[in-house]
Amino acid sequence: MEKRDLLYEGKAKKLYETDRPNVLWVEYKDDLTAFNGEKKASQLGKGKLNNKISSLLLQYLKEKGIYNHFIQQLSDHEQLVEKTTIIPIEVVVRNTAAGSLAKRLGLPEGEKLKSTIVEYYYKDDDLGDPLINEDHIELLDLVDSASLNEMKELSLKVNRLLSELFQSCDLQLVDFKLEFGRDRNGEVALSDEISPDTCRLWDVATNEKLDKDVFRQNLGSVEEAYQTILNRLEGAVTHG
Amino acid sequence: MEKRDLLYEGKAKKLYETDRPNVLWVEYKDDLTAFNGEKKASQLGKGKLNNKISSLLLQYLKEKGIYNHFIQQLSDHEQLVEKTTIIPIEVVVRNTAAGSLAKRLGLPEGEKLKSTIVEYYYKDDDLGDPLINEDHIELLDLVDSASLNEMKELSLKVNRLLSELFQSCDLQLVDFKLEFGRDRNGEVALSDEISPDTCRLWDVATNEKLDKDVFRQNLGSVEEAYQTILNRLEGAVTHG
Ligand SMILES: Nc1ncnc2c1ncn2[C@@H]1O[C@H](COP(=O)(O)OP(=O)(O)OP(=O)(O)O)[C@@H](O)[C@H]1O
Ligand SMILES: Nc1ncnc2c1ncn2[C@@H]1O[C@H](COP(=O)(O)OP(=O)(O)OP(=O)(O)O)[C@@H](O)[C@H]1O
Ligand SMILES: [Mg+2]
Ligand SMILES: [Mg+2]
Repeated sequence: MEKRDLLYEGKAKKLYETDRPNVLWVEYKDDLTAFNGEKKASQLGKGKLNNKISSLLLQYLKEKGIYNHFIQQLSDHEQLVEKTTIIPIEVVVRNTAAGSLAKRLGLPEGEKLKSTIVEYYYKDDDLGDPLINEDHIELLDLVDSASLNEMKELSLKVNRLLSELFQSCDLQLVDFKLEFGRDRNGEVALSDEISPDTCRLWDVATNEKLDKDVFRQNLGSVEEAYQTILNRLEGAVTHG
Repeated sequence: MEKRDLLYEGKAKKLYETDRPNVLWVEYKDDLTAFNGEKKASQLGKGKLNNKISSLLLQYLKEKGIYNHFIQQLSDHEQLVEKTTIIPIEVVVRNTAAGSLAKRLGLPEGEKLKSTIVEYYYKDDDLGDPLINEDHIELLDLVDSASLNEMKELSLKVNRLLSELFQSCDLQLVDFKLEFGRDRNGEVALSDEISPDTCRLWDVATNEKLDKDVFRQNLGSVEEAYQTILNRLEGAVTHG
């Protein structure tokens, strides 16, 4: 496989074309951003950790039957993925009140939700990724309603699988964000990354935050937190 | 009918108990507020106009088969309504991009929407009446899902009826907000008011704004705008 032109540089990753038209070469960066890009930093080791965690989780989900774009990890910072046409909707699944949900509904952070919440956000940085509903999605033609249902069902399945996996290594999956795309056959494929940048993960015993909130809220070392996640996941996957 | 204790004083209306347990005496105030109460004013004549417009519209909808709380207009500022237990959801129906929708989705104000949009807002002043989805509604137990569907269907029916009525007097119904409550039998009843405070109404020929945006955006005389709406509606209902 040959790495070719840079296709896209985002806040957290660089995507390169390869010599195969449907394969992308992803490089995980050490950059961290929050609050729609207002807070920025670089953290040595973060890209490597997210690459490893995301590779592990996407591989795990693939083995559990969740079709996704992951092909293989190449190096510390790099992985190969199937190229997809990203559907501009971020699907957020929530098990426990935190972040914008706690704020929106006036719920205390940490309150276990009696029903799982699925939210859609319009992936548009200029608009600040606003919360949208199914009528907005139809109006903007972001995706047809059958595919949206599929995305929702897949997200709930991912939630069940990952909640269980994290639980087995004493981590609580508070909430997470997924992106989906269409592969060359038009199939909906889970895409992008699953990492402490895109999940809230709390230690079950202490409620210690081990995710991007460490950065957002200046709670300590991002690298240490993400390393803890990786270590525990590697233990769980090996011995599970 | 006897007016008794003040039950509730809101930003736009006062509700009084009466000698009948299921009947409320509503007094429309001249106060105007916008931006979640941040902008305030009083406009002589506004309460009277909204009372008359809301009476006319709720009576019209009742005759068209939309069950609602309206009983009768009592005086310039007063009307009698069925007491309901308000469901804390504001249902917003939109035909044309304006206000928060234009902002949320980055649409130009005035763009005709290719599909009608229904939005739910959590009626909670402290939280700033946030946009919510059906999962949030279930989580907060705001209403059961059958009643929510009923509210949505009723709102779309109201939209068809009012769009037609306004069209007949050269007004474009851009969007509007409805509230629903439960009557003493547990039935869902359209409640609250329908007025230029709760609808966006534009002159069909000139696109002149004839609703609360006149106040929000300092576009001229609120009283004149609301008087225009009342005059046109009275013409349409009489000659229609
Ligand atoms: N398999 C894929 N094929 C094509 N694009 C992908 C794939 N997986 C993820 N992407 C997209 O690649 C980009 C990844 O970069 P990064 O996560 O750094 O973006 P970002 O800064 O979050 O910006 P944004 O997501 O707003 O574009 C995202 O736009 C993501 O949607
Ligand atoms: N039939 C009804 N029975 C009981 N309450 C009603 C009925 N119709 C409307 N209401 C409620 O009465 C109040 C009307 O007052 P007003 O419109 O001034 O309130 P507001 O300032 O908009 O505040 P709120 O946030 O409570 O709506 C609202 O709270 C409304 O929900
Ligand atoms: Mg990203
Ligand atoms: Mg009101």
